[in-house]
Amino acid sequence: MTKEFFKVLDVGQVLALAPSFARLPTEDIPLTEAAGRFLAQDVIADADLPDFARSTVDGYAVQAASTFGAAEASPAFFQVGGSIAMGESPGFSIAAGQAARIATGGMLPPGADSVVMLEHADALDEATIEVLRSVAPGQHVITAGEDFEKNAVIAFGGRRLRPQDAGVLAAFGRTRVRVTRRPVVGIISTGDEVVPADAAPGPGQIRDVNSYTLAGLIAESGAVPLAFGIVKDDFAALHVACARVLDRCDMLLVSGGSSVGVRDFTVEVIAAFPGSEILVHGIAISPGKPTILARVLGKPFWGLPGHVVSAMVVFARIVRPFLRHIAGASDPLSQDTRIVARLNRNVASAQGRTDFVRVRLVRGEDGIWAEPILGKSGLLNTMVKADGLIEIGKNVEGLDKGTEVEVILF
Amino acid sequence: MTKEFFKVLDVGQVLALAPSFARLPTEDIPLTEAAGRFLAQDVIADADLPDFARSTVDGYAVQAASTFGAAEASPAFFQVGGSIAMGESPGFSIAAGQAARIATGGMLPPGADSVVMLEHADALDEATIEVLRSVAPGQHVITAGEDFEKNAVIAFGGRRLRPQDAGVLAAFGRTRVRVTRRPVVGIISTGDEVVPADAAPGPGQIRDVNSYTLAGLIAESGAVPLAFGIVKDDFAALHVACARVLDRCDMLLVSGGSSVGVRDFTVEVIAAFPGSEILVHGIAISPGKPTILARVLGKPFWGLPGHVVSAMVVFARIVRPFLRHIAGASDPLSQDTRIVARLNRNVASAQGRTDFVRVRLVRGEDGIWAEPILGKSGLLNTMVKADGLIEIGKNVEGLDKGTEVEVILF
Repeated sequence: MTKEFFKVLDVGQVLALAPSFARLPTEDIPLTEAAGRFLAQDVIADADLPDFARSTVDGYAVQAASTFGAAEASPAFFQVGGSIAMGESPGFSIAAGQAARIATGGMLPPGADSVVMLEHADALDEATIEVLRSVAPGQHVITAGEDFEKNAVIAFGGRRLRPQDAGVLAAFGRTRVRVTRRPVVGIISTGDEVVPADAAPGPGQIRDVNSYTLAGLIAESGAVPLAFGIVKDDFAALHVACARVLDRCDMLLVSGGSSVGVRDFTVEVIAAFPGSEILVHGIAISPGKPTILARVLGKPFWGLPGHVVSAMVVFARIVRPFLRHIAGASDPLSQDTRIVARLNRNVASAQGRTDFVRVRLVRGEDGIWAEPILGKSGLLNTMVKADGLIEIGKNVEGLDKGTEVEVILF
Repeated sequence: MTKEFFKVLDVGQVLALAPSFARLPTEDIPLTEAAGRFLAQDVIADADLPDFARSTVDGYAVQAASTFGAAEASPAFFQVGGSIAMGESPGFSIAAGQAARIATGGMLPPGADSVVMLEHADALDEATIEVLRSVAPGQHVITAGEDFEKNAVIAFGGRRLRPQDAGVLAAFGRTRVRVTRRPVVGIISTGDEVVPADAAPGPGQIRDVNSYTLAGLIAESGAVPLAFGIVKDDFAALHVACARVLDRCDMLLVSGGSSVGVRDFTVEVIAAFPGSEILVHGIAISPGKPTILARVLGKPFWGLPGHVVSAMVVFARIVRPFLRHIAGASDPLSQDTRIVARLNRNVASAQGRTDFVRVRLVRGEDGIWAEPILGKSGLLNTMVKADGLIEIGKNVEGLDKGTEVEVILF
């Protein structure tokens, strides 16, 4: 079996496979633990928010019409009919020419339609004020339903919960929410030359790096990484380890195996699981070409390149959308954050494959520039220097200095 | 005491106070838990990385000079002197005209300086290959120290640890790292009209929202939120609650109190702590003007506006740099991510204060546009619709449609 034998797909073809994997089950969790999770379904307002008209300033609740024409030189006079306690329903109503003292957030009494700011009124005595400026109906008031009307969608299924979304759910008393379960992603490092990071490598040996970079990327994506350590380049050992991971995890990343022999092991291990299916065997990208995707026991099983940069790029551009999909995202293909910058030098690229170029962002007086960082895909220092990636399409020969590019941040 | 009485500062003056607070103590933690934390000190390479020359491809290790002139039509012939096992030191060396089979990641034998790719060589028999293309010295090899040289800084103190930084530390065997302790931030909601999110509000009452939005923002910043619930507008109750929070937390956010009376309570409570100092009493921003910053028991004590939008804006632009500073960031003022976009309509702004305008990002054929979302600062729906904020400087009257703006994402 040669490595090029079948199923070298381009980026778009690979990403189109994401929806073929099942979403994870949903669960009810406390709102306080829901940040960053994907809502399982739309949440509907069961009432108006707010459900009463509130003042947005400290002042006097009035009927706006009674203030019309009021000015410094010709104030309007009001009888103060009472004061509104916070968090209580006013026990009185307001007629023309009457006012009630109200604090920010207070409930407008019946009859009042607006609030005069404290600084635009002067108290003449306990029971009388003069108003120095007119207000319009609704001014300095949030009306009932102005924020959300009853039956409106307050949070959309498949959307990542941000702090403000948690706030809206709290405002409606939804202190438990139904979200998709957080994916657990198992990581196996392979390679006879790889030793644990806390060991002292002998001659020809290197420490395990991918377990750490991949765990970091998984955690940043809102999933739970579980590192299962290093497995030797041996069919039986890898098969046993993969079975153990697939039993506990929702996705498996086997990293390492940039050599042909090791990739063949991975393919043999996949084939040994009943019903398994190799979906991708090579992607037309650089770095990251020798990537394998299979469906094993219904779960995504990835064979990632051993070079640390390749593995990170493949994760960021290819694996992450699959992870977002099974985690319940309605838009798994939308990459998180892209910044527009201009290239500060020419970049060459081969046709027929998508190239990912690491770049550093440099802020100049005339905007943000992307400076390509070239270097072998085995070099960590290029990732440490880089702020993100640019993507050069497979039908593009290269990009000229000054071209606007979108930088996918790491 | 009136609200304008003293210490209304502009954004720059407030942010300049951040370094006056002490950084939190440092601690040694496992590298696997260090993602997103701030390194307490520079980490130095104690060896070259890699510490031996490695092949980046599957092929044959050779002396490059022996391949010079090789081509399809005039191959160079090599004696295969052995095969290099992964993770072991080759027990032989390579002379001119000799080659050794090597896999990706294998250690180059003494004498070899480059690797011929497998696809550019043909095996003639067990002991002989012909090489169809020349290689340069160093080609397909990562030399010792090429990634990081001994004594280089591999990770900088005060920098947030990204996945690739964790990878570099793992590569050097630094499986424990010294980082600044993660800040614990206490949240108190105030307001006689505020009820817990899981309660049913009576007339004139609203549910606590700020505890949820602020907790989300704190967690997104890498700190630990601790919500202490709702405290009534009462000096003694607020004083007791603040003392309890300051005892357990590194920073305190008291939200609510948009009315003058409540702000006065907050100031009185601050004054009741021995040695306390009010640093800021009002910021020249909108929304968010009625913000208080004090130093109480050496810790930052914030009085945030009650309006949810104001509180979120003040957190994102003002509080977060302080949080990053005490968490150990060397660049606490660098805001996380900004996207350049163009305004799709005119925006007015008052001079003499910094205005923060919520915007939604809209991707058009001609680039990314920022669409202002106008609405009262008590309305959550504006935050749900928005993708970020733009900042309009205090000496700017407004921005025209088409102006390039930087959007601070939430």
